[in-house]
Amino acid sequence: MAGRLGILAGAGELPLRVVEACRAADRPVFVIAFEGAADPALVQGGVPHAWIRLGAAAEGLRILRDNGVEELVLAGGVRRPSWLALRPDWRMAKFLIRVGYRALGDDGLLKAIIAEFEAEGFRVVGADSILDAALAPEGPLGRHRPDAEASEDIALGFRIARALGALDIGQAVVIQQGLVLGVEAIEGTDALIARCAPLRREGPGGVLVKAAKPGQERRADLPTIGPATIAAAHAAGLRGIAVSAGASIVIDRAALIAAADEAGLFVIGVATS
Amino acid sequence: MAGRLGILAGAGELPLRVVEACRAADRPVFVIAFEGAADPALVQGGVPHAWIRLGAAAEGLRILRDNGVEELVLAGGVRRPSWLALRPDWRMAKFLIRVGYRALGDDGLLKAIIAEFEAEGFRVVGADSILDAALAPEGPLGRHRPDAEASEDIALGFRIARALGALDIGQAVVIQQGLVLGVEAIEGTDALIARCAPLRREGPGGVLVKAAKPGQERRADLPTIGPATIAAAHAAGLRGIAVSAGASIVIDRAALIAAADEAGLFVIGVATS
Repeated sequence: MAGRLGILAGAGELPLRVVEACRAADRPVFVIAFEGAADPALVQGGVPHAWIRLGAAAEGLRILRDNGVEELVLAGGVRRPSWLALRPDWRMAKFLIRVGYRALGDDGLLKAIIAEFEAEGFRVVGADSILDAALAPEGPLGRHRPDAEASEDIALGFRIARALGALDIGQAVVIQQGLVLGVEAIEGTDALIARCAPLRREGPGGVLVKAAKPGQERRADLPTIGPATIAAAHAAGLRGIAVSAGASIVIDRAALIAAADEAGLFVIGVATS
Repeated sequence: MAGRLGILAGAGELPLRVVEACRAADRPVFVIAFEGAADPALVQGGVPHAWIRLGAAAEGLRILRDNGVEELVLAGGVRRPSWLALRPDWRMAKFLIRVGYRALGDDGLLKAIIAEFEAEGFRVVGADSILDAALAPEGPLGRHRPDAEASEDIALGFRIARALGALDIGQAVVIQQGLVLGVEAIEGTDALIARCAPLRREGPGGVLVKAAKPGQERRADLPTIGPATIAAAHAAGLRGIAVSAGASIVIDRAALIAAADEAGLFVIGVATS
């Protein structure tokens, strides 16, 4: 755990939470903020950082080394670009050609990226090892529980999410009364939730299931929920959220529980094989 | 082929084409137009018909019998309702409880519905048996062809669409340069295409793949494309469309080909096992 932590920062709240956790633990950091993804607020207040293009791998590696980083964490989502939009530098192009960019799903690509960093001599750790108590426990968070119908929807949701995950497509599905309202691909969970609102059927609302992929690379892109997920789910008329216990990250647990309790949503961690 | 054809009409153009084909062949029809789904234009001009609620099975069966229907075709999509919104009558409730509405995907449900009509003494035929030359042939329709990259996207699209179909979720996916931009669930293909427009990456556009499900019930809900699909795909920046050869319906082929040629889109039927 010693030394400066390199944070490869994409979108969302997770990178900020990692920075805060390091500050609280007096651990120095260096943030590589990906252009077009990372939140500018992340690097305000004197956080050592560099903005780089996703495709600029040689520059990124050099900056990490120049700043004495030996341990790395990947935090936050990055909108996966086409090869053309990526404009890979020589180092990135060499890597992508070797691993076969086109043929890899997201999880396959992240595994290859992590292996590449390790071949370059970095140690890669998961965000959950930096954030205390970040992994979803088994059982309900907060005071609401799924009823029998929601439990059936959750079971169906995990079955489908894991089949999709095996294809390395997305992590999330929305199920209402046995109907699959939506399936996540590249658009992300927030967009999935929003588009399911007008598809909602009469009667008890749907559930969002967000599941780790079979064989998921645990050091990147674990399913993540936070207070914003509760707000979005509530706005879309969902009744609750189920995530993989021990294999998904809960950001800002106290605020998430307060929001879920207030909105009447259940949030539950489900053990999956 | 003798006798009056009963047409159970949902949304879209397909029911209208079936009515027109019967008129051209001097075959009498009776249309059961599902409220909230069928196009009112379908039953204009003196086409014998009745509007009924989807949940009113007893009434529907009685009307079909009273009107001398022995052969039936299911044509056009129906937005699948929750149990509550369906307000099933006794006949429908009996059926749905027996087959297990919640547990059935769309194709499973359609198979059960067809079996039920047959148990009631009706013959159920596919829309393609009424419409001449409606099934997509193998190979290109029109003058544009997929290039090597589009062909890779098509192959990936069929692999994913068939895996989704095996889960009985949806029939369609959009792939661009190996990235899965979107996966269809209950929202339908038009909504899928529209939401993929803002997800488009730089460079060569994506392809829509619409595939029959493994073991697909061929008498209902075959993947269907028409001139409107071309317009939607073009508007979303897609480069072309691939469908299962011999297991998908092409509505208004001449107009579809003209629209595709004009827009620069390829349309291709692909043989799948």
